Amino acid sequence: MGEFDLIERYFKRADRAAQRESLVSLGIGDDCALLSPRPGTQIAISSDMLVEGRHFLSTVNPAALGHKALAVNLSDLAACGAQPIAFTLALSLPSVDEAWLAGFSSGLFALADAHGCELIGGDTTRGPLNICITIFGEVPVAQPVHAPSVGGRTTALLRRGAQAGDDLYVSGTLGDARLALEVFRGTVSVPEEVFARARLRMDQPTPRVALGQALRGVATSAIDISDGLLGDLGHILKASQVGATIATEDATTLIANYSYLTGTSGTIDSEVSEKRLGWVLAGGDDYELAFTAPPALRDTVAAVAAHANTPVTRIGRIDAQPGLRLVGANGQAVANTWTSFDHFA
Amino acid sequence: MGEFDLIERYFKRADRAAQRESLVSLGIGDDCALLSPRPGTQIAISSDMLVEGRHFLSTVNPAALGHKALAVNLSDLAACGAQPIAFTLALSLPSVDEAWLAGFSSGLFALADAHGCELIGGDTTRGPLNICITIFGEVPVAQPVHAPSVGGRTTALLRRGAQAGDDLYVSGTLGDARLALEVFRGTVSVPEEVFARARLRMDQPTPRVALGQALRGVATSAIDISDGLLGDLGHILKASQVGATIATEDATTLIANYSYLTGTSGTIDSEVSEKRLGWVLAGGDDYELAFTAPPALRDTVAAVAAHANTPVTRIGRIDAQPGLRLVGANGQAVANTWTSFDHFA
Repeated sequence: MGEFDLIERYFKRADRAAQRESLVSLGIGDDCALLSPRPGTQIAISSDMLVEGRHFLSTVNPAALGHKALAVNLSDLAACGAQPIAFTLALSLPSVDEAWLAGFSSGLFALADAHGCELIGGDTTRGPLNICITIFGEVPVAQPVHAPSVGGRTTALLRRGAQAGDDLYVSGTLGDARLALEVFRGTVSVPEEVFARARLRMDQPTPRVALGQALRGVATSAIDISDGLLGDLGHILKASQVGATIATEDATTLIANYSYLTGTSGTIDSEVSEKRLGWVLAGGDDYELAFTAPPALRDTVAAVAAHANTPVTRIGRIDAQPGLRLVGANGQAVANTWTSFDHFA
Repeated sequence: MGEFDLIERYFKRADRAAQRESLVSLGIGDDCALLSPRPGTQIAISSDMLVEGRHFLSTVNPAALGHKALAVNLSDLAACGAQPIAFTLALSLPSVDEAWLAGFSSGLFALADAHGCELIGGDTTRGPLNICITIFGEVPVAQPVHAPSVGGRTTALLRRGAQAGDDLYVSGTLGDARLALEVFRGTVSVPEEVFARARLRMDQPTPRVALGQALRGVATSAIDISDGLLGDLGHILKASQVGATIATEDATTLIANYSYLTGTSGTIDSEVSEKRLGWVLAGGDDYELAFTAPPALRDTVAAVAAHANTPVTRIGRIDAQPGLRLVGANGQAVANTWTSFDHFA
């Protein structure tokens, strides 16, 4: 199968623009795709590259990989509060494996369709397996009544808006992907159903797109914490020139498999307890959002989170004092011994 | 060096938006970048992935590679007549080689700055060397006087507008990249200065950005012919539901190293002559434009090409009859035995 047949068979679809109002004026099939942004909006753009052996194992289910490759990009749009529009896919493949392509594209398009996000172009080439997606979303601009055509204040959620006194929240649960990874690595052993649940979170993360959009005008800052909570929170602190205090007991409740790890007796093995906190704080590969909001908006945060059908947990606060502090159940300082994921460290 | 230090040192630059009117509202450093398109415009988007051993040799000069990685994307914008705005860069690197990074980023930014095209985001990861750039350009929309905010006819050059009777043109020269490749392969041998000139065209192609923009409203169709003239022209013919006839004598004059290949005696070795035509028609890796325009606009084409400081050569015409015909100097049919480049064929 040639390059154009491959695109035609697995990645080109019937014209979807006709099916609904679309900002995509031209999709796959020319030198460029064309987007027609609406007045009073900005285009949010993010790009992520997934490499075999680094971001996923060669044994991963191709449909799950198709899902994940798009999910990690949708998560970046979510962190900015953007509405997904479209994406490009550049794919380097060692060979044409039709079963793999069928699986990959089905997982990719299932998630794309769920978010109304259209594949508008890209590239295919032969080489070591590499998946690069660039994604486009729409964010409204807050404009004065007599608006200039360009300019105005963005409504995108950025890293730089956190204020001392703000609450610090995390969406969903953390640590599952790391639990699954540790099972693969053989450092822990868990019952099959716990592993299956954790692995699903690793392979098919849920980008918090609805929550991100709902938080526009509510959250003062937000970030996707896929490199680990502590490290990614550090980007908010640096950009906002603030510090933060995290209540580790509150953070620990974020782990989805908590009930298993505490054991049926209700007591926690101390080694597992320590690991568990590390997985929450710096496990990585969780596609959740950390965000900040004023305490006066606690009810609003609860309401929009409920509306977005996404649980959120308040785990700390933003301080004027720089630095990140961890505080235990009894107010004692907890040493921060965890580092964020870094591909080159 | 960690991932963030690497980005900070080699890819993050002083805020350039302040230096000129920019559509980039937010560049590197958040979950997404933000573009603020102007009313009455569309965003043209293209993505290309370059893989070591496939698109370039490991011995390539890193500055030339930085240039080429962006040039191949700029060439896609040129083919649509778009004005470059910005790009994202996703980079998979086997290791942190600071000399390589310094060279690569210098070549990349030299070309980016020449086109006012800003790096606004991307990704870095460890893995086999892979460079994926997604590029963004601006194209005006032709609108009625009382314009709706969205909609209007695009002014982008597309593949589908060629009309029977149109002239067929190619920009610049063809075949040099293939000549350089054949020297590397050892199938031909040429004097050092000829090779140096050909290699420069292979390593540091010139995207025809100014010509593409100048052809808006003049050309009826256009395409980037990086996979080879015949194959890429085939995309115009298919999209426009037309055929074409190419005068091979006219096409042959497109080769830049023609004077060398004809020999000092002025006679052409028949084997070289045959190769030469193949390199022009299907050599590949030439970042030139093929485009069509009505014969009534010949003077206009000449004027805009001169204004864009880019030579163009008329090599044939568009026919109502489907298919692609090659005609020799005496009107005789020339068999088309060349195939277009295909990564998976």
